[in-house]
Amino acid sequence: MDFKQELKQYQDLMNSELEKYIDTRECPEEVLNRSMEYSLMAGGKRLRPILVIATYQIFKEDIQECMPFAVAIEMVHNFSLIHDDLPGIDNDDFRHGKPTNHKQFNEATAILAGDGLLNNAYRVISKTLENSKKEDLSKKIKIFQEFSDSVSKMIVGEFVDTEEEGKQISEETLEYIHRNKTGALLTLCVRMGAILAEASQEDLNRLTAYAEKIGLAFQIKDDILSEEGDEKILGKPVGNDKILEKCTYVSEYGLEGAKEKLDKLTKEAIEELEVYNEKAEFLIELAKYIKERNK
Amino acid sequence: MDFKQELKQYQDLMNSELEKYIDTRECPEEVLNRSMEYSLMAGGKRLRPILVIATYQIFKEDIQECMPFAVAIEMVHNFSLIHDDLPGIDNDDFRHGKPTNHKQFNEATAILAGDGLLNNAYRVISKTLENSKKEDLSKKIKIFQEFSDSVSKMIVGEFVDTEEEGKQISEETLEYIHRNKTGALLTLCVRMGAILAEASQEDLNRLTAYAEKIGLAFQIKDDILSEEGDEKILGKPVGNDKILEKCTYVSEYGLEGAKEKLDKLTKEAIEELEVYNEKAEFLIELAKYIKERNK
Repeated sequence: MDFKQELKQYQDLMNSELEKYIDTRECPEEVLNRSMEYSLMAGGKRLRPILVIATYQIFKEDIQECMPFAVAIEMVHNFSLIHDDLPGIDNDDFRHGKPTNHKQFNEATAILAGDGLLNNAYRVISKTLENSKKEDLSKKIKIFQEFSDSVSKMIVGEFVDTEEEGKQISEETLEYIHRNKTGALLTLCVRMGAILAEASQEDLNRLTAYAEKIGLAFQIKDDILSEEGDEKILGKPVGNDKILEKCTYVSEYGLEGAKEKLDKLTKEAIEELEVYNEKAEFLIELAKYIKERNK
Repeated sequence: MDFKQELKQYQDLMNSELEKYIDTRECPEEVLNRSMEYSLMAGGKRLRPILVIATYQIFKEDIQECMPFAVAIEMVHNFSLIHDDLPGIDNDDFRHGKPTNHKQFNEATAILAGDGLLNNAYRVISKTLENSKKEDLSKKIKIFQEFSDSVSKMIVGEFVDTEEEGKQISEETLEYIHRNKTGALLTLCVRMGAILAEASQEDLNRLTAYAEKIGLAFQIKDDILSEEGDEKILGKPVGNDKILEKCTYVSEYGLEGAKEKLDKLTKEAIEELEVYNEKAEFLIELAKYIKERNK
């Protein structure tokens, strides 16, 4: 398997799917729509929707059923980026190498574009429920519930992260932040794919464990990149965490300690999937990619 | 009917219902929960949830079915107030006579409390779908869809309002703003009550017309109060619209013109409901109250 090529295919698929949801009408709120589009199409890795689809594909082939949920989760992810970047929260000027939403537009637009993307995610879910076959409703409603619970966790994680900035925090609090801030949504993605594909409870547990491990690994890698990444590749300044006295896995365990933790989690995540053989090859490679990525 | 007393009973009912949804646990995000509670329990009129319930009661008695939607709409309303008050949007310091959320807490908390309330509204809806009888799912999914569409309209209305601030705008744009910013949610409330109660299409149309008229009337009255209300009763400064050069029904039609429009709309709204006789007495009195209120 050529992982990079598969990844690119998934990304292209998602980009063209997302484009279908962009409102290009001439209307009084056109600038708001451009602002949502700006962030949604800013060149994110599409990790979350890809997790939904690739998990689904362990069990089933026709991915049409996944697409609305893949779109919705990417909208939520981008809502969170826009709001986290705001002057009132992280006050970041760049994201994916481009000005952040409030820098490109203005603060009011960025606040409302974030609100709009969060709400649009639920519009997409409501439409998929409306158009669903009766026999598929119950699993989709379960997903809707897990979706909304996970978004709340993400908001909570961001809040605690903001609150604790500059304070000395315990390992427990650090884990709490990331289990909520990034972990909850990544776990949701994998669970959505599995639930939609009608995986067994055993499979769901296994995949949830995989997701929790790569979620934590993802955050540790982010912290490592923020410390020693390449600014040009990352598209954002490096070393800011130290200046802001952010508590990260690097500040908590040191660079070497963080790397060891990352190795261990990646290994364990992969072990969870070995039972699926080549059906899970992409997700296994994805775990390695999360560990090895340079942006 | 003693309207004031009935209104108070509805408000008390809603206040105790909303309290059930307040998270009082000791947890790392406790301050965020306090911030959401602060706005949600700040003494709003509960107009939106009351519209849901009172409309339902034209047709059916047992209002339990309405309550989750009544709660969800009040959460959305409060999300919108918190975000609209932010320094990046309207930069308001007072609401209901108390410091606005970002003044009482801080900007980051207010942004995330707004996000949290919007998302919690959908958590409430998802739980009500999860616990619903199969035969009630289809109307509730229809409501979920209208709900998410109306919230999008509200965000759009707020955006256009912000964009057009200080500009000379057409009557058409002014109507566009308010049909979206306040009208969409008020109409949604009445429609939710009617759809839940399984009203006929004819009833739904009639009630939608009523809602659209009181929605516009509500905004016109707001503009009149912003111009000539009593600061102490309103709990916020009067005359700000002029200073901010906001385009309002008063700036567009003059104080007398706005009052005439308000009278006409109230009369027409009431006419829509005459067919229901005493079953709609509360909604008729509510239309009069919207016109005559002093806050």
